[in-house]
Amino acid sequence: MRYRQTFIPTLREDPTEAEVISHKLLLRAGMMRQVARGVYDFLPLGLRVVRKVENIVREEMNRAGAQEILMPAVCPAELWQESGRWDVYGRELLRIKDRHDRDFCFGPTHEEVVTDIVRREVRSYRDLPLNLYQIQTKFRDEVRPRFGLMRGREFIMKDAYSFHTDLEDCQREYRNMYDAYRRIFDRCGLTYRPVEADTGAIGGSLSHEFQVLADSGEDALVSCDSCDYAANVEKAELVPPAAPLATHGAALTPVETPDQRTIEEVSIFLGEPPERFVKTLLYETDTGAVVAALVRGDHELSEPKLKNLLGCQWVALAAEETVHKATGAPTGFAGPLQIEARLISDQTLRGATGLVCGANERDTHLTGLDIARDLPSLQFADLRRAAVGDTCPRCERGRFTAHRGIEVGQTFYLGTKYSQAMNATYLDASGAQRPMEMGCYGIGITRTVAAAIEQHHDDAGIVWPKPLAPADLHIVPVNWNDATTRKAAEDIYAELQQTGTDVLFDDREERPGVKFKDADLLGVPLRATIGGKSLARGVIELKVRADGAMTEVPADRAVEAIQNALSNSEAT
Amino acid sequence: MRYRQTFIPTLREDPTEAEVISHKLLLRAGMMRQVARGVYDFLPLGLRVVRKVENIVREEMNRAGAQEILMPAVCPAELWQESGRWDVYGRELLRIKDRHDRDFCFGPTHEEVVTDIVRREVRSYRDLPLNLYQIQTKFRDEVRPRFGLMRGREFIMKDAYSFHTDLEDCQREYRNMYDAYRRIFDRCGLTYRPVEADTGAIGGSLSHEFQVLADSGEDALVSCDSCDYAANVEKAELVPPAAPLATHGAALTPVETPDQRTIEEVSIFLGEPPERFVKTLLYETDTGAVVAALVRGDHELSEPKLKNLLGCQWVALAAEETVHKATGAPTGFAGPLQIEARLISDQTLRGATGLVCGANERDTHLTGLDIARDLPSLQFADLRRAAVGDTCPRCERGRFTAHRGIEVGQTFYLGTKYSQAMNATYLDASGAQRPMEMGCYGIGITRTVAAAIEQHHDDAGIVWPKPLAPADLHIVPVNWNDATTRKAAEDIYAELQQTGTDVLFDDREERPGVKFKDADLLGVPLRATIGGKSLARGVIELKVRADGAMTEVPADRAVEAIQNALSNSEAT
Repeated sequence: MRYRQTFIPTLREDPTEAEVISHKLLLRAGMMRQVARGVYDFLPLGLRVVRKVENIVREEMNRAGAQEILMPAVCPAELWQESGRWDVYGRELLRIKDRHDRDFCFGPTHEEVVTDIVRREVRSYRDLPLNLYQIQTKFRDEVRPRFGLMRGREFIMKDAYSFHTDLEDCQREYRNMYDAYRRIFDRCGLTYRPVEADTGAIGGSLSHEFQVLADSGEDALVSCDSCDYAANVEKAELVPPAAPLATHGAALTPVETPDQRTIEEVSIFLGEPPERFVKTLLYETDTGAVVAALVRGDHELSEPKLKNLLGCQWVALAAEETVHKATGAPTGFAGPLQIEARLISDQTLRGATGLVCGANERDTHLTGLDIARDLPSLQFADLRRAAVGDTCPRCERGRFTAHRGIEVGQTFYLGTKYSQAMNATYLDASGAQRPMEMGCYGIGITRTVAAAIEQHHDDAGIVWPKPLAPADLHIVPVNWNDATTRKAAEDIYAELQQTGTDVLFDDREERPGVKFKDADLLGVPLRATIGGKSLARGVIELKVRADGAMTEVPADRAVEAIQNALSNSEAT
Repeated sequence: MRYRQTFIPTLREDPTEAEVISHKLLLRAGMMRQVARGVYDFLPLGLRVVRKVENIVREEMNRAGAQEILMPAVCPAELWQESGRWDVYGRELLRIKDRHDRDFCFGPTHEEVVTDIVRREVRSYRDLPLNLYQIQTKFRDEVRPRFGLMRGREFIMKDAYSFHTDLEDCQREYRNMYDAYRRIFDRCGLTYRPVEADTGAIGGSLSHEFQVLADSGEDALVSCDSCDYAANVEKAELVPPAAPLATHGAALTPVETPDQRTIEEVSIFLGEPPERFVKTLLYETDTGAVVAALVRGDHELSEPKLKNLLGCQWVALAAEETVHKATGAPTGFAGPLQIEARLISDQTLRGATGLVCGANERDTHLTGLDIARDLPSLQFADLRRAAVGDTCPRCERGRFTAHRGIEVGQTFYLGTKYSQAMNATYLDASGAQRPMEMGCYGIGITRTVAAAIEQHHDDAGIVWPKPLAPADLHIVPVNWNDATTRKAAEDIYAELQQTGTDVLFDDREERPGVKFKDADLLGVPLRATIGGKSLARGVIELKVRADGAMTEVPADRAVEAIQNALSNSEAT
């Protein structure tokens, strides 16, 4: 690949539109351009990286026994109406009317379409299992598209769907996909964690997210410092404390707390530590219910846990008006006694005594709350968000550490959610009709490209993991107008092309500084610098992009040395 | 590829929804399924064929120096408004509103988006030429989607766009693309013709269509039986006749022709041959003009030629009311004298005498028309549709023969249509700002798949050209339950997989008849039949799908024999 014949419009300055590093660097390296908010062109080098990810995904999906198909981008509303998602998916679904005024959508995910294929063709248990996948452009009409490929509207995704006779076989395939995903992200050269996840709007009850670890990640994760357990912070299971907080014998006593609303304020005002407080959080749900969730003053509520417990579509902090109606007081003084709302408490509070809580009265709190005595029929559940230092629920020895992650893949056990709604059944060995068990498995291809950059970059530019790099080697002849340099560079380039090495050859008449800057920005793993002075000494210089390590190698054995260097860096 | 692990839902019966053979066979062979009108799923074997075409296209485009990029499917209306196409493209453009009520379309072609990329990045003549292409899913909201992949709504296309400093360089690239297209369709194993074409709505002035020849083709073509010239029948240039038809001295004479309207009727009624007639065809245009086009009675008018001559967007036969207004008579009696319309005549009529024409009066015709005498200021042009036997305009020796074709590719010289509308300029060597010259070059990937079947099939099924086949070899063990047969088949399969041969291995416990029928239907070029009886004689049977030729080869040298057979059929 000759630089002069390749469209690589690099930029010297950070584009103002870009907020995160992957977005900045993809634009600066001339790998993509914005067409509309969250909608991008992939230019030649960017597309090469996308294709590298796609090929790794394809090879590992095929190896795992999944079969590639291609479903349409424009999907008929009828199928989405059958599953019920046409009405609940909301405005992220890009809805389209064709010239005959029929409803379609630009498919953001394809459970309905694939279930329709399978229900039409599969009759018997002999035709199962089946795992069908595609690699396809999708659209989700995000309300605030941002961060470039991290949260675009149009993006490339690999989505797979598996169909089974029973739960056991579905779980076997779930594990098979989990293993394939590990191979995929290992092969991409990324540091990642599979974490237990919330199942979200897709449904089902078992799910993992594959999270590429990066400080800029949108997702908060915890992992055990002693075993393999890792989870989204909102989903991480928590074990109840060995013993509850207790201060025996205290009586419920109202105290005046003028103008003190937050736990922090009241804690300082009363001289009680935050863990002695009960936070009473009022929520509204999509079903119109009002729920008061209790967590300890030093803990955070996990809204996904609350939502899953309630079995509703969404929960949202109650509006001022609702708070007033339920408590008779303004926001900031809610408490669990005499409140008009369904009460649910985090399990940590079970049996605790001597607590402080709101009194449902302006400028007043109650001390001496005894959970068992004062709220005898309270329901307990795991409702709080995990935090650093929490005990691991698996090994019960390790403690949680915190990470930031970028979700690049997710696996779901779907059960019979779609097969029942859409009547995708098969005849079992006894001739009985049964709904198929389903799993689904997604990978954000373009998001993986962004995540790789978020994890692998420095101040000078991108530092591609070798398996994703747009080229294996970047040859920089220092002075293109020097005939000796040019000939040596051309010879090495020609010889490497014979061996199938993927080379970006900087044949521009630019100053060395410009070429080196561009090389660092583009992030090809290995650079070969060919200059007049070093050639006079019979050497050329190799530089590893990742660690900056430089070595001189004999010019007359350059190709051999480059190949050795490339196979050595294979491991990184 | 094991048959039992591959999703190949073949059908015994022709699906009623399918009108053309490629549609029927793609459905019957389990290669695709319909999701909505003109919208399809590609199943595993069908997608394999699509990918084969894509890869041939990609390799040859790269070899020709074009660079692959990927533009979005969802394109902002602003760009289409700049080019002016937002208003003129009509209802084939699938228009979309996002959640913020902004206008987008599902890109049916990407001149605007690519011109926007290039105008933003290219400043100088040094950055040109540039040829950018993509392989992408497109959507055109056809009013009557039909014929499966031949005229679908969602389809896969390769579209390339080139940018140049001047006409000469653009023409060089046009030729370069023309040559690449020849290599592509040669490599696909298709019989095709590049033909001169009408430029249609995309614009520009030079265009070729690449037509796969097939009886079922939608397009009528003519080609010279003596030189390389070929053209769409509507576009083929025609040479004026050496001498005009002449019968000197006749005077214009009205004759009564009660209830005789068509040329055929009046010809029989008056006893004059059709070539002595003038057909006067009244057209309306998008600009509101009414035009009377004259062609000889035995000739057909080419509407595209008329449209191009007038420089308008469309022409349509005039409504009864318009005819009445222009002629004072009902449809069927229009003539060139005293008509209220702009007159244009096909060049064949220049100097002709002794003709019959309509009299603009019910049940009346005129005889003795002398074109030069009676219509002295008539404008002549090449307006007629080519026909078998017409003289070739290039060599002026050969005669036209007729073909039916399926358009699978088209190349256009666009000139500065888009670069001027969208201000895509560059600075030339003297520092002056000039608009770029552009070309565009499309290939219908999924249409090529359909065209290959229309050209290559028989009563039993598809007969894939080897380069497009979903597998190289189809192994059919006759009796799967016979251990000897199964072992021999498994051994050959395993050995061939080592050599990289792409094998479909029918490991089903089906009757031999079912397996053979499916093999014929799927159309893999070579079949290896492994049966107990022939194995006992130490042989297996090879059968070429295309011609049915069977050979027996020694079972212990089967792999070698198969590889020989495959490389022999490489040429076909």
